[in-house]
Amino acid sequence: MDFAPSARSQEYLQRLHAFIDRHVAPFDPVYRRENAELNAGADWRGWRVHPRIAELKALAREAGLWNLFLPDAELGAGLSLLEYAPLAEAMGRYEFCAEIFNCNAPDTGNMEVLYHYGSEPQKARWLRPLLDGAIRSVFCMTEPEVASSDATNMRAQIRIEGDEIVVDGRKWWSTGIGHPDARVAIFMGLTDADAAPHARHGMALVPLDAPGVRIERMLPTFGEYDPPYGHGEVSFDNVRLPLDHLIQGPGQGFAIAQGRLGPGRIHHCMRAIGAAERALELLIRRGAGREAFGQPILRLGGNLERVAQARMAIDQARLLTLYAAWKIERFGVKQAMSEISAIKVVAPNMLQEIVDQAIQIHGGAGVSHDTPLTGLFALARALRIADGPDEVHRAMVARVELAKYGIGGKRGAAA
Amino acid sequence: MDFAPSARSQEYLQRLHAFIDRHVAPFDPVYRRENAELNAGADWRGWRVHPRIAELKALAREAGLWNLFLPDAELGAGLSLLEYAPLAEAMGRYEFCAEIFNCNAPDTGNMEVLYHYGSEPQKARWLRPLLDGAIRSVFCMTEPEVASSDATNMRAQIRIEGDEIVVDGRKWWSTGIGHPDARVAIFMGLTDADAAPHARHGMALVPLDAPGVRIERMLPTFGEYDPPYGHGEVSFDNVRLPLDHLIQGPGQGFAIAQGRLGPGRIHHCMRAIGAAERALELLIRRGAGREAFGQPILRLGGNLERVAQARMAIDQARLLTLYAAWKIERFGVKQAMSEISAIKVVAPNMLQEIVDQAIQIHGGAGVSHDTPLTGLFALARALRIADGPDEVHRAMVARVELAKYGIGGKRGAAA
Amino acid sequence: MDFAPSARSQEYLQRLHAFIDRHVAPFDPVYRRENAELNAGADWRGWRVHPRIAELKALAREAGLWNLFLPDAELGAGLSLLEYAPLAEAMGRYEFCAEIFNCNAPDTGNMEVLYHYGSEPQKARWLRPLLDGAIRSVFCMTEPEVASSDATNMRAQIRIEGDEIVVDGRKWWSTGIGHPDARVAIFMGLTDADAAPHARHGMALVPLDAPGVRIERMLPTFGEYDPPYGHGEVSFDNVRLPLDHLIQGPGQGFAIAQGRLGPGRIHHCMRAIGAAERALELLIRRGAGREAFGQPILRLGGNLERVAQARMAIDQARLLTLYAAWKIERFGVKQAMSEISAIKVVAPNMLQEIVDQAIQIHGGAGVSHDTPLTGLFALARALRIADGPDEVHRAMVARVELAKYGIGGKRGAAA
Amino acid sequence: MDFAPSARSQEYLQRLHAFIDRHVAPFDPVYRRENAELNAGADWRGWRVHPRIAELKALAREAGLWNLFLPDAELGAGLSLLEYAPLAEAMGRYEFCAEIFNCNAPDTGNMEVLYHYGSEPQKARWLRPLLDGAIRSVFCMTEPEVASSDATNMRAQIRIEGDEIVVDGRKWWSTGIGHPDARVAIFMGLTDADAAPHARHGMALVPLDAPGVRIERMLPTFGEYDPPYGHGEVSFDNVRLPLDHLIQGPGQGFAIAQGRLGPGRIHHCMRAIGAAERALELLIRRGAGREAFGQPILRLGGNLERVAQARMAIDQARLLTLYAAWKIERFGVKQAMSEISAIKVVAPNMLQEIVDQAIQIHGGAGVSHDTPLTGLFALARALRIADGPDEVHRAMVARVELAKYGIGGKRGAAA
Repeated sequence: MDFAPSARSQEYLQRLHAFIDRHVAPFDPVYRRENAELNAGADWRGWRVHPRIAELKALAREAGLWNLFLPDAELGAGLSLLEYAPLAEAMGRYEFCAEIFNCNAPDTGNMEVLYHYGSEPQKARWLRPLLDGAIRSVFCMTEPEVASSDATNMRAQIRIEGDEIVVDGRKWWSTGIGHPDARVAIFMGLTDADAAPHARHGMALVPLDAPGVRIERMLPTFGEYDPPYGHGEVSFDNVRLPLDHLIQGPGQGFAIAQGRLGPGRIHHCMRAIGAAERALELLIRRGAGREAFGQPILRLGGNLERVAQARMAIDQARLLTLYAAWKIERFGVKQAMSEISAIKVVAPNMLQEIVDQAIQIHGGAGVSHDTPLTGLFALARALRIADGPDEVHRAMVARVELAKYGIGGKRGAAA
Repeated sequence: MDFAPSARSQEYLQRLHAFIDRHVAPFDPVYRRENAELNAGADWRGWRVHPRIAELKALAREAGLWNLFLPDAELGAGLSLLEYAPLAEAMGRYEFCAEIFNCNAPDTGNMEVLYHYGSEPQKARWLRPLLDGAIRSVFCMTEPEVASSDATNMRAQIRIEGDEIVVDGRKWWSTGIGHPDARVAIFMGLTDADAAPHARHGMALVPLDAPGVRIERMLPTFGEYDPPYGHGEVSFDNVRLPLDHLIQGPGQGFAIAQGRLGPGRIHHCMRAIGAAERALELLIRRGAGREAFGQPILRLGGNLERVAQARMAIDQARLLTLYAAWKIERFGVKQAMSEISAIKVVAPNMLQEIVDQAIQIHGGAGVSHDTPLTGLFALARALRIADGPDEVHRAMVARVELAKYGIGGKRGAAA
Repeated sequence: MDFAPSARSQEYLQRLHAFIDRHVAPFDPVYRRENAELNAGADWRGWRVHPRIAELKALAREAGLWNLFLPDAELGAGLSLLEYAPLAEAMGRYEFCAEIFNCNAPDTGNMEVLYHYGSEPQKARWLRPLLDGAIRSVFCMTEPEVASSDATNMRAQIRIEGDEIVVDGRKWWSTGIGHPDARVAIFMGLTDADAAPHARHGMALVPLDAPGVRIERMLPTFGEYDPPYGHGEVSFDNVRLPLDHLIQGPGQGFAIAQGRLGPGRIHHCMRAIGAAERALELLIRRGAGREAFGQPILRLGGNLERVAQARMAIDQARLLTLYAAWKIERFGVKQAMSEISAIKVVAPNMLQEIVDQAIQIHGGAGVSHDTPLTGLFALARALRIADGPDEVHRAMVARVELAKYGIGGKRGAAA
Repeated sequence: MDFAPSARSQEYLQRLHAFIDRHVAPFDPVYRRENAELNAGADWRGWRVHPRIAELKALAREAGLWNLFLPDAELGAGLSLLEYAPLAEAMGRYEFCAEIFNCNAPDTGNMEVLYHYGSEPQKARWLRPLLDGAIRSVFCMTEPEVASSDATNMRAQIRIEGDEIVVDGRKWWSTGIGHPDARVAIFMGLTDADAAPHARHGMALVPLDAPGVRIERMLPTFGEYDPPYGHGEVSFDNVRLPLDHLIQGPGQGFAIAQGRLGPGRIHHCMRAIGAAERALELLIRRGAGREAFGQPILRLGGNLERVAQARMAIDQARLLTLYAAWKIERFGVKQAMSEISAIKVVAPNMLQEIVDQAIQIHGGAGVSHDTPLTGLFALARALRIADGPDEVHRAMVARVELAKYGIGGKRGAAA
């Protein structure tokens, strides 16, 4: 047993921290203000990316801090999931930070899908420019009309008609679809509604300019539209595409999704942990810097206990996430289903709690845009729903637990 | 002991519910959508009130449902605080509802200040149009530069110079200042910084068009600007006004604030309870209407336990608030300090928790604007800070508790 | 709405407090020590009642503080449930206090059953000596072999054979059965297992010296046997009794139980609230009396916040209990099912939490017998199970809540 | 980073599990019953050890499962702290298990003190028989008269007079002092009350048969006296001993205590984790084996969510404890102070919560002695106080956290 990151991971981490300290941290308040101004009062059609972002991306690439998430040593950094995890945490401190290093969701997950399951032509057309950070992509799974927590509720279709596929359905919470560089969606739909539950779905690559694709609206998260990324509600109205837009074959969607989710959740959770560290730092700095009743407010009431509880919660969430990453690497996603679900519950709830306390100690400033806290709160709150709500993941953990005693669990819900 | 509202209160409640069911509830989704469109993309200078609001106000006044909060039988409905409380709860279900009945904060509190402490000319100039719903007012207490939880931190000044006062300072979270009809602020500042802590402050009536008053910006709450009301940061740059703009005399500010706070908190908390009832209703309806894993999601996992806990929490918060109201009426604000602080902690925390669960059961819709839930969440979250953060109120409750044992408490903070 | 107890209730409360302050409070530490010595190392067969108890009972009766729980003005004090509630709270502060006033469970509930449902001979034989405090009784419902939270699981039988009944089954948690004066059990069993669920049970009066009744053992609660009361596991081996030992007729058991439970839960919960007040007092006194790091430990960390939260929780639980009592009186037990279940969850959980914190502030003394805290803890913990576990009561509250929306609930369990 | 135990640790773990499965698990219910009978009704002076214990100790020693905690390869198993941790967890499942392998507290900590700090004669006299499991020892630190959470409150003295020491004071919660084989106490007291805070204390070896040593009484924990171990209150009345009974010199007590505490807390917490695993197993088995309302109660309400939360909490607590062990080994106790304090809060609280839920699902059986749950509860509850209460450890974690920002913390209490 050894809790030290590998030498390679530490070396990357050091360079990443140096880069962030020099280029990202001081830019953060500027970005938050200028990005809001740049995209204020504008319909998503007019969203623009802050010009400094492209510069920072170039700098990061130059510095060899690019595609760090990809275990492939040629296309990415060649870091294992466990080696990458601390880097993802570091990026999680700043909203726009992962993009600088081309490690932003959902592009990372989409690149992994293409990398593992894409055909060569699919890779050439989409993976290459994604790896270059030249375009952005979205992932279309959740649907507005049904409880998407139960995958068998999915209604969207990918009908195979001769050498074409017809993509049809309505999706929402398609994150990043408002970005000016968004070009392609990975779309999940039924290829055969009558097949076994895990063989019903397919995944298709849908260019966003294909006829029939229409962004109906952007959805706010607690009032925030997150420009220039956004979360779209998108209709796909019988979008016809050549058959080679299907990833692998029909019925493969569920397996691809499972493969995508494991590492993706590690990334998400590590970023949530980084965000929690930042919230705790803000809490402490504000609490130490303001006085009431003759003392820094940090020393009043139970505030120091909250600091301690936050530290314990963060450290535990981090260790659990690293352990899940290790289990994925050592035994595969299937053997780590319980741990993957566990961190999906633990990390966002922990983040929400700590951000809530950081808001409290900031008083009125905490609920405004004068700090990044409401943004972090919205992130945490949305994460408790996205990619399966807490309830579904608790049910998975319970199911694995009961199976140890030979007790068969019902699928999907702790009921 | 009797838990039934008075006959008069019940009679009003019945009529109020009928009015709300007929005019407000069906309009709510329309209002939320159209108000957002009306005031989207606009600077606060362009905010407008939805035209239906004025019509509804007229209807309510006609129906004798007007100024219900005011215990005076001629100017208001003549209901006691305890009689009014259930009406405030009923109004709390819809964001814009209290205004229909001219019972919206901060106007209610300001009208009470004018009613109890204003001179006749002050009443004629400001109370009359407020009672008519013709103008709106704001309350300027909290300051951006200091921890306002400790009133002794206040820096703003009301200097008396001959027959003039000079109002100087910066305030924020001045709610309602963006409203087109906002005309006057009640401003709290130091009239004598060297006096005893509770004799330092004064309150002045400051017309918002007085030279030197400047709205610096509007503050978002979790991304929401709450048009057409808004929460302003306002600078008062040596605003000169005749001495008769002072309410009562110098040094009276603290006493006036205390008198204002008791009933105001009852109002706030009862509205929060109404909001919680609505969140619980939304939770139940959504949970019963969506299926996953072969059951309504309401029946999955611990969801029904959450319904039960919510019911228990709401009922307890309501009873405590009513009890606090009763104690104010029976023994005066001073004897009810602990209870007033207690409900200020209990009600918003209860609301936040229930809204959080309602959001969860709505999935992605819950964090968007498709439901009123994020608005209710922001309300709850802000209430935990406004008018004294939870921590200050817990400290007050503890102080009163310790005093029962003759243990002297430190002022203001549980430390 | 009026939160003041009736004049009559206040008058009784005053006298009760005076009696407790004079006779009970100073005796409490003596009793706890001497009762432990008296009954230490002894099998339950040797348990004795501290001699001072009988003296105090005589004093209380003389003082007109006797059978206060009974709404009948001739046999008891003639106080309504709502008038009695504050008296029950006052008695809850000391473990042995209710017995002094002949208001101890389960005798109170059993007396109510006899009072409302007993025949004249049953009243003469059992109610009279119970009202005199001359004998004690037990209630035999829960069974060791099944989940008693679901009443349909009950296995014990009351077979009617000619003019006899045959009582057969095994019960446990029969509280008070170790008391030297325990003479009779109210036994619940199936009179017709095939009848409709609520018409299956009967209740019989079983003299504890009847052949076939055997106390198998006493059960400890967290290691405490609660001498001289005790909680017994009792076998009834085909106990033959004359038919007139049945209360009302066959099939009436469920209805009798329901009628018994409403007021009984008010009593239990009010006593729990009194116990919580005492725990909070102990917490404050100890916290103020010990120093660490240069301050009373009460002022360290979040301790004062805990005091405040405890005060809020106690006051809310009290108000909810009083409200439930009022609803029973005003609308009947059936209309108050949700509130009765709610307090059964709220009060013991609140007590457990506050006692836990009081223990914590006492350090090692808190887990020992040097304070009454572990006793109060065991009381709280057992109350969360007895008379229906939390889960069953939450399910009831949820069921009533859903019914408001026309959603049919499943019986008995939040699933 | 690697979460797999070392090959050596795994090998030991396998053998330990095999031994426990074969010899300990089946004996557990027998032991609990027979030990209670053996020591019932008896004063601690008559406590005896169940005869099977000695046999099991012999078997364990034979099997090479002896003194596993001691990193010394000759005297113990030579396992590192991190290698031993999973073994401690395995032993934590059964109350009497650690003793079988001579790994029971406080002997382990005392042996470590003697091993690291004892003189050769001290080792020969006390360490040797302790390593053989021939005698038992106690640790006397906590005092009844003061808040021992603040070490500067300590009043006991070790006065040096010529070539003698005089040990004087009163201690309590001296665990294991009732054991028939208990022979020696490590006693902490002031050697120089005027020295710097960390140089005031000394530690002395006090034979329990020395004149002036008197066990005043045994203290129950939630009513349990834990025979044949017990927790004693002990007076030391000017006990005169040769100077060589002092460990190291005067003023060294604090440093020795610190060195003792790190590994000791890892042991405690790992055992607590094993206990939590057992409680969760009991919860699941009982919940699956009893039915109510037509389903196993495990599937009712939020019970499966509780299983999931328990799994997450246990795994996080384990990882944090292992991480703390790793940090001690890698960087020393001083660098791991925050983590050591963190696990001291996290593990017992987690255990208490899970045991509480396991009790709930057992109904009445859960609070009785029919399961080991109340014993596990008492263990958890006492652990939250022993070796520094939660509050002191949270304060330590907060202090280390603030120091990262250069904010000086006050000593010892989150205030």
